[in-house]
Amino acid sequence: MPNYHKPEAKVVQELRDIANKIRIHSVTSTQAAKSGHPTSCASIAEILSVLFFHTMRYKVSAPKDASSDRFVLSKGHAAPALYAAWAEAGLFPVTDLQNLRKIDSDLEGHPTPRLNFIDVATGSLGQGLSMAGGMAYVGKNYDKANYRVYCLVGDGESAEGSFWESVHFASYYKLDNLCLILDVNRLGQSQETSMGHDFENYRKRLEAFGMQAIIVDGHDVEDLVKAFHTAASTKGRPTAIVAKTFKGKNFPEIENLENWHGKALGGETDRVIEHLKKLITNPGPLQIHPHKPLKDDAPVVDISNIKLSSPPNYKLGDNIATRVAYGTALVKIAKNNSRVIALDGDMKNSTFSENLLKVDPARYIECFIAEQSLVGTAIGAACRDRTVPFVSTFACFLTRAFDQIRMGAISQTNVNFVGSHCGVSIGEDGPSQMGLEDLAMFRAVNGSTIFYPADAVSTERAIELAANTKGITFTRVNRPTTSVVYPNDFVFAVGKANVLVSSPEDQVVLIGAGITLQESITAAKELAKAGIHARVIDPFTVKPLDTETIIKNIKEAGGRAVVTEDHYYEGGLGDAVFSATALERNIVVKHLAIGKLPRSGPSDVLLDLYGISAKHIALAAQEVLKL
Amino acid sequence: MPNYHKPEAKVVQELRDIANKIRIHSVTSTQAAKSGHPTSCASIAEILSVLFFHTMRYKVSAPKDASSDRFVLSKGHAAPALYAAWAEAGLFPVTDLQNLRKIDSDLEGHPTPRLNFIDVATGSLGQGLSMAGGMAYVGKNYDKANYRVYCLVGDGESAEGSFWESVHFASYYKLDNLCLILDVNRLGQSQETSMGHDFENYRKRLEAFGMQAIIVDGHDVEDLVKAFHTAASTKGRPTAIVAKTFKGKNFPEIENLENWHGKALGGETDRVIEHLKKLITNPGPLQIHPHKPLKDDAPVVDISNIKLSSPPNYKLGDNIATRVAYGTALVKIAKNNSRVIALDGDMKNSTFSENLLKVDPARYIECFIAEQSLVGTAIGAACRDRTVPFVSTFACFLTRAFDQIRMGAISQTNVNFVGSHCGVSIGEDGPSQMGLEDLAMFRAVNGSTIFYPADAVSTERAIELAANTKGITFTRVNRPTTSVVYPNDFVFAVGKANVLVSSPEDQVVLIGAGITLQESITAAKELAKAGIHARVIDPFTVKPLDTETIIKNIKEAGGRAVVTEDHYYEGGLGDAVFSATALERNIVVKHLAIGKLPRSGPSDVLLDLYGISAKHIALAAQEVLKL
Repeated sequence: MPNYHKPEAKVVQELRDIANKIRIHSVTSTQAAKSGHPTSCASIAEILSVLFFHTMRYKVSAPKDASSDRFVLSKGHAAPALYAAWAEAGLFPVTDLQNLRKIDSDLEGHPTPRLNFIDVATGSLGQGLSMAGGMAYVGKNYDKANYRVYCLVGDGESAEGSFWESVHFASYYKLDNLCLILDVNRLGQSQETSMGHDFENYRKRLEAFGMQAIIVDGHDVEDLVKAFHTAASTKGRPTAIVAKTFKGKNFPEIENLENWHGKALGGETDRVIEHLKKLITNPGPLQIHPHKPLKDDAPVVDISNIKLSSPPNYKLGDNIATRVAYGTALVKIAKNNSRVIALDGDMKNSTFSENLLKVDPARYIECFIAEQSLVGTAIGAACRDRTVPFVSTFACFLTRAFDQIRMGAISQTNVNFVGSHCGVSIGEDGPSQMGLEDLAMFRAVNGSTIFYPADAVSTERAIELAANTKGITFTRVNRPTTSVVYPNDFVFAVGKANVLVSSPEDQVVLIGAGITLQESITAAKELAKAGIHARVIDPFTVKPLDTETIIKNIKEAGGRAVVTEDHYYEGGLGDAVFSATALERNIVVKHLAIGKLPRSGPSDVLLDLYGISAKHIALAAQEVLKL
Repeated sequence: MPNYHKPEAKVVQELRDIANKIRIHSVTSTQAAKSGHPTSCASIAEILSVLFFHTMRYKVSAPKDASSDRFVLSKGHAAPALYAAWAEAGLFPVTDLQNLRKIDSDLEGHPTPRLNFIDVATGSLGQGLSMAGGMAYVGKNYDKANYRVYCLVGDGESAEGSFWESVHFASYYKLDNLCLILDVNRLGQSQETSMGHDFENYRKRLEAFGMQAIIVDGHDVEDLVKAFHTAASTKGRPTAIVAKTFKGKNFPEIENLENWHGKALGGETDRVIEHLKKLITNPGPLQIHPHKPLKDDAPVVDISNIKLSSPPNYKLGDNIATRVAYGTALVKIAKNNSRVIALDGDMKNSTFSENLLKVDPARYIECFIAEQSLVGTAIGAACRDRTVPFVSTFACFLTRAFDQIRMGAISQTNVNFVGSHCGVSIGEDGPSQMGLEDLAMFRAVNGSTIFYPADAVSTERAIELAANTKGITFTRVNRPTTSVVYPNDFVFAVGKANVLVSSPEDQVVLIGAGITLQESITAAKELAKAGIHARVIDPFTVKPLDTETIIKNIKEAGGRAVVTEDHYYEGGLGDAVFSATALERNIVVKHLAIGKLPRSGPSDVLLDLYGISAKHIALAAQEVLKL
């Protein structure tokens, strides 16, 4: 271990004191809030003290600084300890800590980026390391800067498979700038963890998954200082520091006991505080301070105003799958901005994200068949606006990472999702491969934008818009080809629906998206033969839905509409249209969607069997005319 | 290794022949379908041959037999090989295999329980072992029978964290009746897996996670026979057989090469078939046959007509959290049926599933913080109607297992989910702990039933009904207390809404559920003071929603309604009501829900801040009166 210098005795004592100050703040702030997790804070106090006052290099005055070390508290319920560390470091007055969990304070129960020192929200367990891995991947491969990423994970949450996906990702990509600290305090919420204090077991697993594992006494600041030095000196693989700790450490008669999870100390508070104060040698101003980064070596990055390098170039009536157009668009926007990246889960030859790999391998991150790691990595890569990630796989497999996507919304992330192979139109592979719940899922994601382009032209523009849209975006693309219905110079906008077929005599509006827009256009032609005039609307974005255009057009067509989607009945385009028209009297909307568990078969046969083909749309329109 | 007898040479040759027959069927059936995964079938042909014709004990004539060994094909895309094994075993004519993926055949692209020999659907990767673990847990602990459970997992899908959760579950619970076979064929869909043919790495990981690991040549039937014998002879821990295989084995110029995933062989078919035929010594009728179970030792189980052991026993106006009533109901139904079990992810003292643990530890399965394993285990435990599982955790954390739940619907599973801590009403813990997307998620699950009880009485009845409802059920329960509004003898039914407040003069209908039903009742009282008559409806089940009652009552109240929910705007109760009324002219529905990312704060303050409290409902009702 090169250049290791044991810290001076006074530094060691100061680090111990800071740890106990963090404990005191954690106890008093949770007691003031009458809720929270003081015992979970107590086990990580020395880890935070050493990281924030000895190991990490960062600017207290600029928590988002691009060249500073990053810290992710995966066990988000220990937020009070993290807040206390930043307060002691000088970011805000320690007296603010008493506002923990109050309605007018951003010091929430679990960390969110409402706080300027939080990059990613945590609180759903087992997710922190994937996001830290994304940050470390960017630091090593794109920023090529010296900052390191530290991620503190609880032992209870290491039971999450997503954690092991992330350990594998970090070791596979040799993220030696990533350091995991596993807080093995033995106790979960309702009982002991399945592995208790079996440190050798943790070591074996972490080493088998490719990390260097170092077991330390997590309450010994010298042990920690040395381990962090070893981690920083180790090249070629990430390090896991397995910290033997005790829940409620230094809380007499509470330490290492069950039934103290997630509780303020109540009547025990004064006794515990008194004990903690006695442990502190220097109750006055701190004698040590955080270290700044050695240099400002992270490049300035601009991810604004991303454009397709060339406009869409198709002919009306060309048959192209929208997933293919996605691959084309991805390469075009990547050409114009070096921070556009793609991530996929071994589906790149189906989603066409491989197009970017082919032109610039460095900007494609293969995440293999591990969708939680895929999504978490992208959220980490996106934070602090360092990259513009596009995450693709089959739409149905994005459900594997719903919790990560949900947390991504709380993280205020700007990740763009692309889900291919939606609906029964995929055909013979059968229901397990069909995205039939994806619109419901993404509609329910806070602040999301959902593109559902019907042809290659609109897909390219959707991807361009997505790259510039804040928050989570989802673009739903089809496996089979669809006909180009837009001219290359058509101008699209988020929340702007397009009327594709209309006449002053229209009696009904047909609303469809993707494959069902195509079916709706065919249905309109069929209806015309029967003398029925139908208007056709492409919403383009399902969320936000263009309420104004939809209401206006339905009213013009006698208050009648048929909305058709290749998705289950619940939560998708139909519900969006119902919601848009809910306050209007005199509007009726007939909904066609997938109402049964579908089966394997040819795409067109399935569209017909489940009642969303042009034939069924035309019939539904005729029924609606009677209402 | 006791009692190991090397198989006779003619048996060995027959097993080899069967493997190549499976290959032939896989090639011809996928070629007939013009799609599918013949190379993924080829790598597992000997494994299936040995399992189905030497190792497993089962009744070909009764694939669901309770005492027979179980087989789960986690890598569901290799379905043609599995179908071929069953056809060769004699369950159906091999000529049927040519109907693979056709619209009128149940031999779908991926296995589903439409086939009588499939217990659980697969096709979304990394899920099979959790379900197999659930089956093995039931076999060992509830059935106490000799049947063994075999689960074949692909190497690509072992990248899924859910797989490692399941390995841990199996070893933690010492499931020595479970045998994992890992098909390490090196090649994923779009490139080599991250671990290729590094068998020692797989061994290290599996052993670190507590399984016995045996590396074998997966194309050597003797090696396989011996390994399966060792697995069956090993007590106290499950065994993983790590099979070195080649994708496209015995397909010349295709074997072990990239770019052959998920493709019928097309022009290569005849050449490959010719080669495979040459490898077969006995092209005629099989000389060996599957072994029957040694005895019928699994007990007869009856899970029908489950009742609460005693009726609800509350007083009108009592304040009880519905999550507490869940715990009470769980114990009551468990008293009356020995196959009612509970599973939780270290949240049992918050969800009150611990009530069952306290009265009967054997019927509570702790799954620790691994929700995917939790759900997969329950699906496995439920199959073949062996148990009635109740799965509980915070509603938001069920999103972690959306893909498993989605696949559970394809598996036609009868798992009952209970999600506590829904909505902003949980208070200070903040958005990461709030279930705000759960109704959207469960509404989009095919065939689901969603209970959203408002008080303790209706919660007990919801749980009783859930236990007897086929398909997936979800019961949404609250953290804070709610007031008892139903008498103990009230009769509830799935799809039956209850009108709680009404008069002939009603001008508007207020619809709420759980906490917002309570707020709606308060709002009605407030409105009454202002001389406005409001009717209040409790839907009780969000899915199916009682369309008839809702439309009838809204019409009686001037076609006006306000629906309020503690959930994001999209996909929940509001959308359900819109959908129910979409074909009615002259109905307007105002929707109150959570429209912003919420924050930490007191429960009642949050209800008010996000506009779903009684005050806001009353205001909305007054606005709707103008429409």
